[in-house]
Amino acid sequence: MRLYSYWRSSASWRVRIALAHKGLPYEYRAVHLVRDGGEQNATLYLGVNPMSQVPVLEMDDADPPQRIAQSMAILEYLEERFPTPPLLPGDPFLRARARQLAEIVNAGIQPFQNSPTVLGYVKDVLHGDPLAWTQHFLTRGLRALERTALETAGTFLVGGAPSFADVCLVPQLYSARRFNVPLDDFPTLLQVESACNALPTFAAAHPDRQPDAAP
Amino acid sequence: MRLYSYWRSSASWRVRIALAHKGLPYEYRAVHLVRDGGEQNATLYLGVNPMSQVPVLEMDDADPPQRIAQSMAILEYLEERFPTPPLLPGDPFLRARARQLAEIVNAGIQPFQNSPTVLGYVKDVLHGDPLAWTQHFLTRGLRALERTALETAGTFLVGGAPSFADVCLVPQLYSARRFNVPLDDFPTLLQVESACNALPTFAAAHPDRQPDAAP
Repeated sequence: MRLYSYWRSSASWRVRIALAHKGLPYEYRAVHLVRDGGEQNATLYLGVNPMSQVPVLEMDDADPPQRIAQSMAILEYLEERFPTPPLLPGDPFLRARARQLAEIVNAGIQPFQNSPTVLGYVKDVLHGDPLAWTQHFLTRGLRALERTALETAGTFLVGGAPSFADVCLVPQLYSARRFNVPLDDFPTLLQVESACNALPTFAAAHPDRQPDAAP
Repeated sequence: MRLYSYWRSSASWRVRIALAHKGLPYEYRAVHLVRDGGEQNATLYLGVNPMSQVPVLEMDDADPPQRIAQSMAILEYLEERFPTPPLLPGDPFLRARARQLAEIVNAGIQPFQNSPTVLGYVKDVLHGDPLAWTQHFLTRGLRALERTALETAGTFLVGGAPSFADVCLVPQLYSARRFNVPLDDFPTLLQVESACNALPTFAAAHPDRQPDAAP
């Protein structure tokens, strides 16, 4: 397997956590989202993903190679093909709640911090403040995430084992700090983040430990 | 089961299609997203969903009642609990591609047309044009969806049977028309939409056929 990734992309980071959690080896292919106007916009990469986004998971064992984009689709694929160790609870309702928490991040928060596309429009077309924009939507989303997480949280966001929800949480809080979002109101999220960061699998997926990390 | 829904909410519509496809009866509970500043912001509804969004699926057979928000989490829950008739292909790679297409809509397009929250910020805080904003992001997302769909489309977006991808497509094209987005460049999407609309299950889920539809 090959992962097209960018060290600080939160969606790439989610997939790196899942691959590490399941002990799956892969080739890391860096796509620099900033340099030269963004390598994701190059013609070559558009053939890999027309959305011009990372991550993309590529499997070489088929011809042509099979490619999957969208981090949630990749997480579900990995869970189906490599179910052990799991990243979803066994109980159907709790599985749904893990996905619900993950989607609050994936569809309710992350799209609004998608730098080149969204923040570029806010800044260049609307002449708005991208930082204020990001802080507004991150704070709003994290508030909902904290409140929803309270109903299921144990050591992790859903009970005692990491799930898709935690996989999405950790990169999201890293982004929130980059954008100076105050996190004091989210004690549950912070406590779970600490538990995640204590796991070697989560640590291995951290942006600073990727081959394309900037010094 | 009870569905908190709004007739024109595209995320609610997705769940209505899945429920109809699987032949599952449910109680329809309307949440008016516009009237009185939006019923989704009322204290009572915040107890149902802190994100102030529809849809929410509620199951009465537990105490307290079990609730799931986020349409993709609900779709996965319904697929796991009521697998027949399916809304995902059997092949692992094609399942992933169906989810990828669904997520292009769910996380890559729909968040940017979320009227009260996002368009309100664009208009009231940034003094921008919400229509131009929506058209920009819908056109960009639909272009990626068309290009990605070309790789798997048959009668439906992934082969010969409807999937999560089609469930997300139909409400998205309805929204695109509401925002006057030109659709000529998306022949694959339009052809699949026609095939979907010919199915009674998709037709039953249409906004105009819901109890809270405006005349």
